[in-house]
Amino acid sequence: MLRKCIVSKPSLLFVLLQGDLVRNLKASGAPELDVKKAVAELKIRKKMLEDKELSLAPAAVTFDRAKMEDLLRRRFFFDQSFAIYGGITGQFDFGPMGCALKANILSAWRSFFVLEEQMLEVDCSILTPEPVLKASGHVDRFADLMVKDVNTGECFRLDHLIKAHLEKLVADKKTVQATRDECQEIIVRLDGMTKEEMGEVLKKFSIQSPLTGNELTEPIEFNLMFATQIGPSGLVKGFLRPETAQGIFVNFKRLLEFNQGRLPFAAAQIGNSFRNEISPRSGLIRVREFTMAEIEHFCDPGDKNHPKFESVKGTEMLLFSATNQMDGKPAELHSIGQAVDKGLVANETLGYFMARIQQFLIRIGVDPGKLRFRQHMGNEMAHYACDCWDAELLTSYGWVECVGCADRSAFDLTQHTKATGVRLAAEKRLAEPKVVDVTEPQINKGAIGQVFKKDAKAVLDHVAALDEDGLAEVEKSLADNGVYVINNEGSEFRLTREMMSIKRHQKTIHVEEIIPNVVEPSFGIGRIMYALFEHNFRIREGDEQRTFLALPPVVAPLKCSVLPLSNNIEFQPFIKQLSQELTRLDVSHKVDDSSGSIGRRYARTDEIAIPFGVTIDFDSLTSPHSATLRERDSMGQVRIPLDILPEVVRDLAYGKTTWSAVESKFPKFEQQESVTKAV
Amino acid sequence: MLRKCIVSKPSLLFVLLQGDLVRNLKASGAPELDVKKAVAELKIRKKMLEDKELSLAPAAVTFDRAKMEDLLRRRFFFDQSFAIYGGITGQFDFGPMGCALKANILSAWRSFFVLEEQMLEVDCSILTPEPVLKASGHVDRFADLMVKDVNTGECFRLDHLIKAHLEKLVADKKTVQATRDECQEIIVRLDGMTKEEMGEVLKKFSIQSPLTGNELTEPIEFNLMFATQIGPSGLVKGFLRPETAQGIFVNFKRLLEFNQGRLPFAAAQIGNSFRNEISPRSGLIRVREFTMAEIEHFCDPGDKNHPKFESVKGTEMLLFSATNQMDGKPAELHSIGQAVDKGLVANETLGYFMARIQQFLIRIGVDPGKLRFRQHMGNEMAHYACDCWDAELLTSYGWVECVGCADRSAFDLTQHTKATGVRLAAEKRLAEPKVVDVTEPQINKGAIGQVFKKDAKAVLDHVAALDEDGLAEVEKSLADNGVYVINNEGSEFRLTREMMSIKRHQKTIHVEEIIPNVVEPSFGIGRIMYALFEHNFRIREGDEQRTFLALPPVVAPLKCSVLPLSNNIEFQPFIKQLSQELTRLDVSHKVDDSSGSIGRRYARTDEIAIPFGVTIDFDSLTSPHSATLRERDSMGQVRIPLDILPEVVRDLAYGKTTWSAVESKFPKFEQQESVTKAV
Repeated sequence: MLRKCIVSKPSLLFVLLQGDLVRNLKASGAPELDVKKAVAELKIRKKMLEDKELSLAPAAVTFDRAKMEDLLRRRFFFDQSFAIYGGITGQFDFGPMGCALKANILSAWRSFFVLEEQMLEVDCSILTPEPVLKASGHVDRFADLMVKDVNTGECFRLDHLIKAHLEKLVADKKTVQATRDECQEIIVRLDGMTKEEMGEVLKKFSIQSPLTGNELTEPIEFNLMFATQIGPSGLVKGFLRPETAQGIFVNFKRLLEFNQGRLPFAAAQIGNSFRNEISPRSGLIRVREFTMAEIEHFCDPGDKNHPKFESVKGTEMLLFSATNQMDGKPAELHSIGQAVDKGLVANETLGYFMARIQQFLIRIGVDPGKLRFRQHMGNEMAHYACDCWDAELLTSYGWVECVGCADRSAFDLTQHTKATGVRLAAEKRLAEPKVVDVTEPQINKGAIGQVFKKDAKAVLDHVAALDEDGLAEVEKSLADNGVYVINNEGSEFRLTREMMSIKRHQKTIHVEEIIPNVVEPSFGIGRIMYALFEHNFRIREGDEQRTFLALPPVVAPLKCSVLPLSNNIEFQPFIKQLSQELTRLDVSHKVDDSSGSIGRRYARTDEIAIPFGVTIDFDSLTSPHSATLRERDSMGQVRIPLDILPEVVRDLAYGKTTWSAVESKFPKFEQQESVTKAV
Repeated sequence: MLRKCIVSKPSLLFVLLQGDLVRNLKASGAPELDVKKAVAELKIRKKMLEDKELSLAPAAVTFDRAKMEDLLRRRFFFDQSFAIYGGITGQFDFGPMGCALKANILSAWRSFFVLEEQMLEVDCSILTPEPVLKASGHVDRFADLMVKDVNTGECFRLDHLIKAHLEKLVADKKTVQATRDECQEIIVRLDGMTKEEMGEVLKKFSIQSPLTGNELTEPIEFNLMFATQIGPSGLVKGFLRPETAQGIFVNFKRLLEFNQGRLPFAAAQIGNSFRNEISPRSGLIRVREFTMAEIEHFCDPGDKNHPKFESVKGTEMLLFSATNQMDGKPAELHSIGQAVDKGLVANETLGYFMARIQQFLIRIGVDPGKLRFRQHMGNEMAHYACDCWDAELLTSYGWVECVGCADRSAFDLTQHTKATGVRLAAEKRLAEPKVVDVTEPQINKGAIGQVFKKDAKAVLDHVAALDEDGLAEVEKSLADNGVYVINNEGSEFRLTREMMSIKRHQKTIHVEEIIPNVVEPSFGIGRIMYALFEHNFRIREGDEQRTFLALPPVVAPLKCSVLPLSNNIEFQPFIKQLSQELTRLDVSHKVDDSSGSIGRRYARTDEIAIPFGVTIDFDSLTSPHSATLRERDSMGQVRIPLDILPEVVRDLAYGKTTWSAVESKFPKFEQQESVTKAV
């Protein structure tokens, strides 16, 4: 909506032309590599267009990040880990307010997804042995390119390094126009470049370490997983998991059994994952240690309808399809029902979760105007996915992927089945029973044992491993020669008709084996938190210094403040009793009996997003006892009898009533709120 | 209580004599090493006594662990991680029921401690850079002894290996009595042995690998932390944290500031920690990856009273003091008030938390008869602690330490201050202002800068680092010679009176700096869970096959089951509506509409500890609609109108009403419950 009016024509044209090129290449069956390159370039052009849009956006959208970060650090929502030791980039500690916000988000998530959808929640190990991550593809493919300073060993993420170097060249007035154009072209193509191509750029521009001017190594693929050894021998290599999903896949059989063998079902997991980023930045958005909440919905590959899709199909969503991205068109509003009908979203299950993700994000305080779903384009889709939509939130860093929603097909279960020989499959009841031919070996174990003694096991294993063709061969050999000969590691074993025969018959089967497909909504909790901070950061009108966070009560770190108007000793029993009552009702709260005007204390509680504040004043001392209740965003106040006040706060905090309902029920309390006024 | 009547005299005497020895050694000021050895032996004798007591305990205490483990595995409470890949010892995945139980325990913990005591909860990084754990003592001291098979590299925990070898010798009929006695003596002394002593035992008995018969290496100290590299350079060594506590200590300044500079306050953290055990065993009790919930209560070292101690001082607790352990006397019941009065427990704050720990454990379902607090003896106390009591729970593995409660004094804050130069201290208001002498340098930065130019900073740093004596020297030199000379790395800097002077004056101070002491309750969540399983495992009277878990509703994985009596289609709308209502009230529940008799389905829900079950039957279909509500432990049933049923279940689940109150209010529903009866 906003987008259309602020897009400058040339940039848009730039994207449109590239989109046409991509479609033409695809239509003409051009080599995959050419298509990939064109898509990569399209992606970059799109990003530039988007950046331009952001820079042109009206003033209301601009936002003082430094001011917000000051608030977050000062009130210890989060800050760098181990700061007194110099700190480590990409690691953050959550202080009391950040921790409570996070716990509330996770609790809301659990109630919204796990409880409401009766998902099977699990809690699996973080340390993961190598073979598991080899099968999942992470050992081989989970890497970024970097180069090292040949003298100091300092590492640089290659794409960041090249981009910074070329941008500097472009900005340099001494650079000739031809070089400038070349640099700009490379920057645009960078994301789609191979290791070799980037190596060429390094050489061509003689890029050296920006810190020391030393030479750099050739590009190196750096695996992003943290490695360690499990156990004392040093022989069992393990990694800190890079995602929680694999813990669910390796438990598939147990979970299916827990669900009494029935599909579909969903498993969920909340937990920490780790990625050894080469050079983390952008605060909470790119970190080395992060909390994820993941869902794996297992379903019949032949039936991806969802029983509850009906209940969400009217949900309006801002969808940014791969086609629109290629055509340089903006995201479009669709009901998810239409989107699935049209085939824009691959199936009902994917669509159902996309709608639920949106509902959840809005519930916890995401600005609906800064939320879109962007479909992955062919070249950026993970190796396992067949359709993928990211819930992206608009922040001052641009659109940030916060929730992925991918159809992973049968990739993971197939990979783990191949690696372990354990069939991760489900049984599906056939619509009609089916009659099939069965060929089975009939074994006389006693006879085999008697003849082959200690070799009997090897013989039996050999027979058990025979497939249809092998069995046919045995059958023929026994019929023709009366004997079937096994050659095993130099030994010869002769099986006779007494030891073995082949039985052929027909069987009616009622079930078939299927490998379930997986739809995976995957939430990055830290990124969502960061977006929540930005979307809810406010400055009081007329007072630049007074900033606060308008987080909804459901996730606000504390629900209520309890303030005595002054340090008058008569207020104390009321404060104590209120605090006890609120605790009994599970309403988290903070008593602030520090000195300072009531206005200043309100400002302090506003900063940490406390939505409601109770003040005990001199009128509270006389019967009927009452207190003021103040709402953070409007700063409106009402007077409420003390005996019902805790319940009113509880109902407000848990969304069972609204502030306007409370305002219409109780007398308004009028008093100018001033930060500087002394009491 | 139980203990006294089943202790066999000789064992008790054995312990008593050793207790006397320890006290005599201490009283006579014997060398520390002798005392340590005697205490270590006492500990072993005590353990043997305890094992004997357990083996003599009445049959009611004996318990079928295999049966319980079968239930826990079959219903996927927890199981070995990565089992399809062969698994890793000491790592476990929690399935849906274990995960829900764990989440409920943590939620109860948060509400009981963090919310009720208004603690500052934090969530810190797991990956910890080396210097932090160097300062805390973990890099140097957090190790177990092991030996390796010289050919295969197989590792053995040394004390376990020696014990197993010697026990085998003792059991061997060919072993002569003298050797047998020697072995037994070594086994008793093993826990207190040094690396060298154990090495001697290895040689003397020619102990070889029990798996291959190969030679073994010399004893090696094996650090139990998992090491990794942070960042791509390979230069920043890090560990997975072995406890969550350090994350709180390094954030002390931020937390103190958050608390507006005031003591006492408590910080809390829930999170995973990691220990690379040499040979983990005993299921959930000794694992490599575990969830802890830790509290660090910071207080004035001069005042360890607790404002809320009054509210818990009547709490009766089974205390097993160090003295009683030495004297071979059993644990004794004391009120915590008496225990603190007598000096048995060091201070009110420690006592307050011990009482709260006990209340919490009982609330979540620990059997109070299987709970004691054992005081650490001198030699087993961690290097940082000045008093420590473990909450131990009795299981089939013996008494297991599940919660530690230690007074860590100022150890950690002092260590991190030393390592970083950042003063982790608080200000304490003095009872009366104090007048002190102050000596301060007066610096003329301009003059210094003008004269020393680029060396000015070095000069200023030198002056800033001067202590009282250094300043006196400057004063004298300036007075006597009119100049003060600094020699710095071969250069000479001459400061004149124009550049610097010394001012002496008096100052009235109102605060003094103190390093807070820390009382630390530290909960091992996995161990508590395991004890909960054992304490709540039940077998139905008269039906050996019917086992269940009598977990209290507050922690039960699911609060309620919803069962249609049969697959009659008319039941479905009632089931659906009930499920929606329960979700709305945040009551976790499970709809079981599988086939199978209602009795069989009750048995299935009993196994996963669901405390309440609603059954929709044919009477539910007619107005006024009603259903049966069944309680798990008593198997009692009542009939309740459907419109109020969800609220009744909610009140039961959250402890707002009791089953007996419900039974007395609604008509009893009489129907024999049978597992085998078909419907």
